[in-house]
Amino acid sequence: MGQSFVNVRRVEFADTDLAGFVHFSHYLRYMEETEYAFLRSLGLDVILDDERGKLGFPRYESLCRYLSPARYGQVVDVTLTVESNDGKRIAYAFDLKVGERKVAEGRLVVVCCRFPADREPFAIPIPDRVLERIPLTV
Amino acid sequence: MGQSFVNVRRVEFADTDLAGFVHFSHYLRYMEETEYAFLRSLGLDVILDDERGKLGFPRYESLCRYLSPARYGQVVDVTLTVESNDGKRIAYAFDLKVGERKVAEGRLVVVCCRFPADREPFAIPIPDRVLERIPLTV
Amino acid sequence: MGQSFVNVRRVEFADTDLAGFVHFSHYLRYMEETEYAFLRSLGLDVILDDERGKLGFPRYESLCRYLSPARYGQVVDVTLTVESNDGKRIAYAFDLKVGERKVAEGRLVVVCCRFPADREPFAIPIPDRVLERIPLTV
Amino acid sequence: MGQSFVNVRRVEFADTDLAGFVHFSHYLRYMEETEYAFLRSLGLDVILDDERGKLGFPRYESLCRYLSPARYGQVVDVTLTVESNDGKRIAYAFDLKVGERKVAEGRLVVVCCRFPADREPFAIPIPDRVLERIPLTV
Repeated sequence: MGQSFVNVRRVEFADTDLAGFVHFSHYLRYMEETEYAFLRSLGLDVILDDERGKLGFPRYESLCRYLSPARYGQVVDVTLTVESNDGKRIAYAFDLKVGERKVAEGRLVVVCCRFPADREPFAIPIPDRVLERIPLTV
Repeated sequence: MGQSFVNVRRVEFADTDLAGFVHFSHYLRYMEETEYAFLRSLGLDVILDDERGKLGFPRYESLCRYLSPARYGQVVDVTLTVESNDGKRIAYAFDLKVGERKVAEGRLVVVCCRFPADREPFAIPIPDRVLERIPLTV
Repeated sequence: MGQSFVNVRRVEFADTDLAGFVHFSHYLRYMEETEYAFLRSLGLDVILDDERGKLGFPRYESLCRYLSPARYGQVVDVTLTVESNDGKRIAYAFDLKVGERKVAEGRLVVVCCRFPADREPFAIPIPDRVLERIPLTV
Repeated sequence: MGQSFVNVRRVEFADTDLAGFVHFSHYLRYMEETEYAFLRSLGLDVILDDERGKLGFPRYESLCRYLSPARYGQVVDVTLTVESNDGKRIAYAFDLKVGERKVAEGRLVVVCCRFPADREPFAIPIPDRVLERIPLTV
């Protein structure tokens, strides 16, 4: 098991839909908010700068399984675990619970990209200062 | 190949984030909008009524791969294909393109649920009037 | 000056748009989240039940002035003040600051409505248990 | 009466909340989408370039009155009217209808800003190429 991190998130009114539960697309935001809180907890930021410009972590893949509905006002514990880091992509696994009840589980796979001012972002190896905090997995 | 359906969706300003592209969670909304337009094209609705109450199609799983950024104002052709229908779950595959450029691909797996007024939704077999329009796959 | 309440909200990545700042529609969510946290702090809920069914507080009017941009990761202090309560409508004023810098100010006017199962919501006088916590203003 | 423009927008599932209607914050998005479709209809864009860099139209104020609920699947006709243009700010009035039923009315006041790469946006006079399409009002 890799590093893990927990973020606590209350379900807001605007997160629900007419079925009365959290709209499924918002779980991706809950997962992303947890990922970014994890990066902040490591002293990293979502947008990093180096001498050649800006770096970030665009998503390569998202997956979510919806297990049980979450309702307005409930508090969701979102647990992130670093599943793998191969130097190009980091895979984060997520577990979302309301108390003991699991409401969803998911995964985000992110790549490190440079964002040039004048053309499309392109993937680069994950830089050392990130690897120092999120080590390579075998 | 199963049934397919195309929905056209312009990227709105509020769909973007500070990286300048569509925020990844919004692709799930693009896919869902296409699914619901597909249901409407078959004379079905997202919420169905029968003599025992309300039926709907909560999501069981979502998957999305992000291949190339989409920007404000671009027009995304979202193609839905019915991948499978085993009588309990329908899997829809999605292909999202800006012109000839593929920006994302994804899948939504949905289950048919009854929504009682007084307790949690529960899964039921997909009813005949849906199967008449979205046939079982082998 | 009426009752007041402060809610602290970090700007999330998904709250921003391609201009690099919080999308203006999200300030309404920041204000609503604060209103609902205020109601919870008083032991009230957004959806109340009585012997005749469900009550809630739909919005009658929203207003927001955008004074200075807020960026990803910044922490916004949202201060709610009860501006008026005439027994039918409550007006909440909001002040949104990042540190000492005011980023926006706004107002939500809400009415108390009954939500019947079988027809449209309709306005009713604000019930006593709400008036006990949010007194009438002259 | 000034120039006017109509945009047609279907209420999507993700636009609703647990009360069963469009969440009030989304009307601001409906108004903005109409404003941007209006600009496109005039051959203008949301982000303009000139020899000194990028220009855009950040919001100065939003107002919305919520008159009647709109539901999933309903089609909203959003009518924009240019209320005033004093060379610094443009005020757009909006009228939102489902068939003959008025669901909301609102206003957006926007300013023209330059977006320098290296510091905060700042307001400038509305440039001639915009004034040619959206004339000054007295």
